[in-house]
Amino acid sequence: SQKLSFIAGPCAMESREHALETAHALKEIGERLGANIIYKSSFDKANRTSAGSARGIGLDKALPIFEEVRLKTGLPVLTDVHTAEQCAEVGQVIDVLQIPAFLCRQTDLLVAAAQTGRAVNVKKGQFLAPWDMKNVIAKLTEAGNPNVFACERGVSFGYNTLVSDMRALPIMSDIGCPIVFDATHSVQQPGGQGGRSGGQREFVPHLARAAVSIGVAMVFMETHPDPDNAPSDGPNMIPMRYFEALCADLLEFDALAKARPPMTFD
Amino acid sequence: SQKLSFIAGPCAMESREHALETAHALKEIGERLGANIIYKSSFDKANRTSAGSARGIGLDKALPIFEEVRLKTGLPVLTDVHTAEQCAEVGQVIDVLQIPAFLCRQTDLLVAAAQTGRAVNVKKGQFLAPWDMKNVIAKLTEAGNPNVFACERGVSFGYNTLVSDMRALPIMSDIGCPIVFDATHSVQQPGGQGGRSGGQREFVPHLARAAVSIGVAMVFMETHPDPDNAPSDGPNMIPMRYFEALCADLLEFDALAKARPPMTFD
Amino acid sequence: SQKLSFIAGPCAMESREHALETAHALKEIGERLGANIIYKSSFDKANRTSAGSARGIGLDKALPIFEEVRLKTGLPVLTDVHTAEQCAEVGQVIDVLQIPAFLCRQTDLLVAAAQTGRAVNVKKGQFLAPWDMKNVIAKLTEAGNPNVFACERGVSFGYNTLVSDMRALPIMSDIGCPIVFDATHSVQQPGGQGGRSGGQREFVPHLARAAVSIGVAMVFMETHPDPDNAPSDGPNMIPMRYFEALCADLLEFDALAKARPPMTFD
Amino acid sequence: SQKLSFIAGPCAMESREHALETAHALKEIGERLGANIIYKSSFDKANRTSAGSARGIGLDKALPIFEEVRLKTGLPVLTDVHTAEQCAEVGQVIDVLQIPAFLCRQTDLLVAAAQTGRAVNVKKGQFLAPWDMKNVIAKLTEAGNPNVFACERGVSFGYNTLVSDMRALPIMSDIGCPIVFDATHSVQQPGGQGGRSGGQREFVPHLARAAVSIGVAMVFMETHPDPDNAPSDGPNMIPMRYFEALCADLLEFDALAKARPPMTFD
Repeated sequence: SQKLSFIAGPCAMESREHALETAHALKEIGERLGANIIYKSSFDKANRTSAGSARGIGLDKALPIFEEVRLKTGLPVLTDVHTAEQCAEVGQVIDVLQIPAFLCRQTDLLVAAAQTGRAVNVKKGQFLAPWDMKNVIAKLTEAGNPNVFACERGVSFGYNTLVSDMRALPIMSDIGCPIVFDATHSVQQPGGQGGRSGGQREFVPHLARAAVSIGVAMVFMETHPDPDNAPSDGPNMIPMRYFEALCADLLEFDALAKARPPMTFD
Repeated sequence: SQKLSFIAGPCAMESREHALETAHALKEIGERLGANIIYKSSFDKANRTSAGSARGIGLDKALPIFEEVRLKTGLPVLTDVHTAEQCAEVGQVIDVLQIPAFLCRQTDLLVAAAQTGRAVNVKKGQFLAPWDMKNVIAKLTEAGNPNVFACERGVSFGYNTLVSDMRALPIMSDIGCPIVFDATHSVQQPGGQGGRSGGQREFVPHLARAAVSIGVAMVFMETHPDPDNAPSDGPNMIPMRYFEALCADLLEFDALAKARPPMTFD
Repeated sequence: SQKLSFIAGPCAMESREHALETAHALKEIGERLGANIIYKSSFDKANRTSAGSARGIGLDKALPIFEEVRLKTGLPVLTDVHTAEQCAEVGQVIDVLQIPAFLCRQTDLLVAAAQTGRAVNVKKGQFLAPWDMKNVIAKLTEAGNPNVFACERGVSFGYNTLVSDMRALPIMSDIGCPIVFDATHSVQQPGGQGGRSGGQREFVPHLARAAVSIGVAMVFMETHPDPDNAPSDGPNMIPMRYFEALCADLLEFDALAKARPPMTFD
Repeated sequence: SQKLSFIAGPCAMESREHALETAHALKEIGERLGANIIYKSSFDKANRTSAGSARGIGLDKALPIFEEVRLKTGLPVLTDVHTAEQCAEVGQVIDVLQIPAFLCRQTDLLVAAAQTGRAVNVKKGQFLAPWDMKNVIAKLTEAGNPNVFACERGVSFGYNTLVSDMRALPIMSDIGCPIVFDATHSVQQPGGQGGRSGGQREFVPHLARAAVSIGVAMVFMETHPDPDNAPSDGPNMIPMRYFEALCADLLEFDALAKARPPMTFD
């Protein structure tokens, strides 16, 4: 198996300057670590807890910025799509289209994303069993796109709480596609602050390490220079000044894990 | 409070003949019971467990049939919408637009549904706490539409299982909108049969009665002349030959519940 | 089926005076309602959230008081047992021995309780599926005691939260023993206040009504003249001044439910 | 932090020969690995799913065998206690008394175990939040025994299923006692085979590795020469021929984890 990669960036794209600055910082971190980083940011927060929350800068403004990020940093870029109609346009610029967890069973969206020919990262719904991702992945591959990642981001556990069932990683891996562990959304507390979601940033290092030691292709972690003032997902994003050390830590465990796949019994 | 109404019909619209036949049967049942029935059917199963499952007859074929159902039976009609784009067209014919549970936080869809001016029935996501529906309802009412129903249809409980937390009914009722209890999807076993969902039809009478005795405005129950051969949700639909007796039973409990709201303490 | 009975009383026995006073009040309520009431109280809170909480007056002091309650009020009495050793002694005085939920799989305790020949009320563990109660009940009946009740009191749902799965009532009823719905512990929030459990008394009327409308033999509700100053389970006990009206409400639904068992399908 | 230790042995003590044979095998594995192993076995399965299942050889027969195991192998021994009365006697022979998960809130049992002066391993109840273990641990330490381990063994997640919330490890670690991860009971499927529990042995290597990479003092794993013919917990025990390689794997991750505690943020 290949060395661990990272999907990282601020939850929401805030401006051209912010995007370029964070992408450059991540590019340099990736170079120092010798690890691939895919730059992630969202142009639209389409399913905010409440209508009063910021939505994002929108597709039209975001695509040229993503293009500039790619050109200037060389990083591949990832963003999430919310409707089938967006896919073709997004696919002209974006390297990896991401299917949000709530939308992971919307057939038209999956097919349209697959048909761009770009890689697709599908988040497992909070309401889905890991074995049910087989049907989700099949919707994409049967649409002619084998380049699909399956992403664990926590499963509903009572109210306003998610839990990371680490068995989901080997179960989804058996489907045959690269596995992504989303360490920052796994500690989200959906709706946990009334009008917005809470989060438990402090457990990201633990959960990410657990996933990496089992063996995953990629870790997804949102990071921001100043999470407490970010427009969304602040409570679970990693402050950027900690990001490199956290990735370095995970790469140590990854090296060990990739050298030793978990034991299987006859 | 007003007498209990029903939202009922086959999960998927199968053909003009099937729709008219089931709608006429329901109209007669409603007349015999003296109860309002809203005819429900879906033109598209947009989030089937697997891609191989039937999708439905589509919007263009379905809308004229819904119109004919309204004209010939006098029943109001309900169908679910999956994209913001569909809402205006659907709203020209359909009395109640329904937001599917997976999509209950998609702001654009909610706003577009609200802007039709039609009534909107929002299903609570399987991943949502009942108090979080306040934000969902607000997305609709702030878009100018006060005519919104909140629908309980079960919450994720481990894998491939839902549970009906009856506390959700009074909690959502406090938001201030009519409450619908979806008795047939509450017994769904999502993904529980591998490539499709299972269901526990045998518990519909129990859960519906529990909800009605607490006090709800409407019960949602899918019904079909031959559920075991229906294109979707067969395991949880009510065979139509039992439907009238089941509604009659619920109306008895409704009469008692409406006369006696549950006690509150100082 | 027979008319609904109640198991009621203060969570913990506080003193002879308190027990006699509450038992007399309940006896009079039962007479006015024409309903059987079993007087419940605990002599030991053996599994308090924290060691600093009060334990109770103890077996030796409690048994004569229970005996006096029986003699003076004519009410049958129920208390919970925590060890196999206690059962024989408790069984000389107490009409119904109760197995606490955490202990519902402790074989020796179940067998010792069964061997007293008294009725046994077993609470379903918060960690148990309703169908697993078949094995629990069998431990009692195979020990020679057919007089067993199965009691639903909520199942773990995330952290510090229980949910009442109303399907448990028909599932456990199929085992063949009378079903008790514990309405006050079902709204407990275990450990939810740090050093002690919280509770949501406000939902007791809703959940009790839901259970009764499905059809149960007994409702268990703890009640206290002054719950907010009770030594345990205050947040979920019913203030005694509301108790009679609450029971009267439930009896209305019970009459309807007993006349109409929930529909079954072929 | 110190190097990872193991708690290991067959779920149930079957005979003197079986105990000595498995203990010798484990002693040799421990020597080859340079790791401490505590020999675990149960003299009584006091809470079997059903009464028809084997109970075990009993306390009187088991204690001399445990003593012989200690003398002949030099391994410390661990067994579980089910009543307060057993503790003093068990404490004369056994190095570590274990409190079963269902009993983790039974105050008298905890106090009696603490008062033996032996180390106590408390399993977190399947119904308990990790932060609630603070109260459980305090019951032991306030009884004068600081030598307490807190053990994670899965939390209820729907019916017949447990999930390992890896956040429990740092949360319980903050209480201030050594943390044990029970890798074989965490994959138990309680009651999952009708009259007995199922298990998912295949995920033990994954979950154990995840826990060790976060950092734990001990891993608990039941192991048996022939699990499929063991009297209890066969589906989740590790075949003994795999045990050494599995421990060696975990020790690699432990070395890395102990050198690098998970990052904390300001």
